[in-house]
Amino acid sequence: MKLSDIGERRAIDIMAGVYDTVTLDDCATIADGDNVLLVTSDMVNETSHFPRGASSRQMGWFTVAVNLSDLAGKGGRPLGVLLSLGLPGSLDADFLEDFAMGAHDCATAYDTSVIGGDTKEMHEVTLCGMALGRMRRDAYMSRTGAAPGDLVCVTGTLGRAGWALDCLRNGSDNAALRDLLHVEPRIDAGRALAATQAVHASMDISDGLAASLYQLSRVNGCGFTVDADRMPLSSHATLEHALYDGGDYELLFTVPPEAHEQVAGVLQAVGCPVSVVGEVIETRELLLRRDSGTETLEHRGYEHFIDRGKTL
Amino acid sequence: MKLSDIGERRAIDIMAGVYDTVTLDDCATIADGDNVLLVTSDMVNETSHFPRGASSRQMGWFTVAVNLSDLAGKGGRPLGVLLSLGLPGSLDADFLEDFAMGAHDCATAYDTSVIGGDTKEMHEVTLCGMALGRMRRDAYMSRTGAAPGDLVCVTGTLGRAGWALDCLRNGSDNAALRDLLHVEPRIDAGRALAATQAVHASMDISDGLAASLYQLSRVNGCGFTVDADRMPLSSHATLEHALYDGGDYELLFTVPPEAHEQVAGVLQAVGCPVSVVGEVIETRELLLRRDSGTETLEHRGYEHFIDRGKTL
Repeated sequence: MKLSDIGERRAIDIMAGVYDTVTLDDCATIADGDNVLLVTSDMVNETSHFPRGASSRQMGWFTVAVNLSDLAGKGGRPLGVLLSLGLPGSLDADFLEDFAMGAHDCATAYDTSVIGGDTKEMHEVTLCGMALGRMRRDAYMSRTGAAPGDLVCVTGTLGRAGWALDCLRNGSDNAALRDLLHVEPRIDAGRALAATQAVHASMDISDGLAASLYQLSRVNGCGFTVDADRMPLSSHATLEHALYDGGDYELLFTVPPEAHEQVAGVLQAVGCPVSVVGEVIETRELLLRRDSGTETLEHRGYEHFIDRGKTL
Repeated sequence: MKLSDIGERRAIDIMAGVYDTVTLDDCATIADGDNVLLVTSDMVNETSHFPRGASSRQMGWFTVAVNLSDLAGKGGRPLGVLLSLGLPGSLDADFLEDFAMGAHDCATAYDTSVIGGDTKEMHEVTLCGMALGRMRRDAYMSRTGAAPGDLVCVTGTLGRAGWALDCLRNGSDNAALRDLLHVEPRIDAGRALAATQAVHASMDISDGLAASLYQLSRVNGCGFTVDADRMPLSSHATLEHALYDGGDYELLFTVPPEAHEQVAGVLQAVGCPVSVVGEVIETRELLLRRDSGTETLEHRGYEHFIDRGKTL
């Protein structure tokens, strides 16, 4: 049996079964008195994550941003970022400074900094980022806790990355490259949400809304109904982009209806749009309501090992 | 200019110049009240780090061990390990469980655990480990602080990895694979040393003693004299292995002569051998004393981008 037969999520399950100290959440946590330390790592590489034409500086920003996004999903304040780079010896040395500037720009934009890392030789440009954060333990927003009746909310708009990918498949396009790679992690929104202690379950959307809902369904043992006409679509984006394409890095969370007003208020205060897109239901099924009727949300989105080559 | 023209250490300098928050030490640090958090990352890959015949389980142990070794060099207590894996889709899925068991064995042997990570698809098996640690701030052993007159000490013996590599170049050999990959990070020794607050400068030796001394020379603006006949060689190992081959992961540190007895005592208490191999000198030169006379220690050891393909 090969990895391409089992896919990324099954691969993670196998290893998590050995470690038994791994929680399937956006970040690992370490108790720290009244606080909790958050640690996360996201590895990206040229072939899977960067379309042709992506600049070194964009790669630097993106690598830091996707790691900070995992902290945002839990409501953490960033403490620092590490970057370990695997680079081919034939790479132009200008890559280093440009990449570092992109990484530095992103880290400083979110009040943190790149504090260390490693550099090694690899055949393929491989960028392994790691972010550390801290927050009050009682404010931590885990992936679990969703309860039937909760409203399902997403920040910002969805589909921008999917639309950008479509544009790039039809030729190089600088605006699309920026849409795809200039990820803006929802750090302020995550911290504001966490401070309310009203959120039941939260994660960042990296592989598409449908894939994220299936992950929440699994760890919470619940289901979801989402409404096509409540989806906050980015300009040009279709429902297909919003549901099934990765790369948007917005926050997905559930709140009890009585807390919705408070949550909307704190998000407005940090300038973050939010939309209610559905509800948590008791039965473990994922439903998409359209004008034409209700159908099952498809279980797809980007998955490593299985989807390689499909996207870029 | 390509990376292969400038080498790993110049590459790190270029990026550190952009970040300005990176200290060239084994770990990055984050202030934490009276304590300091340590974070480190070491990325290894199949081509550069693992000889043919290395098992998945050995790779798991090694990836965790080399990261813990960076904590050991500073005197930190491990809090947790993250592992981000880049794996080809064609890899046998058995790799996952075997690798995870090796990683778990090493983590638990040092009273810590694997708490998270990431899994992505890559052409080459790429293993990015990260370790977190914590210690009292005033006990932290940095790479700087070496003063002329200090004794230069190393733990354990040197040359085991270099000898093992030589054996492997002459054919597969299970004992040699174990010697090379079953790295035992000096966590207890590092913590005992740190507690004395007597150590002036400390690091782990990953690229050979000579390369490590050149790194200490640079950050401390001092030089070293080491004695060939005081080198604690592993069985079969030559002076060449000890000085110029990477992979031993012992600790290298300097102490003022008056603290030597105390330091030797605490290391004995944790069962860690230690040898004085030379002294810190004021002039920025690295000298090797042999029976036949004194010569300059060569500035070589494993360096990525430049040395690829030379070792395994």
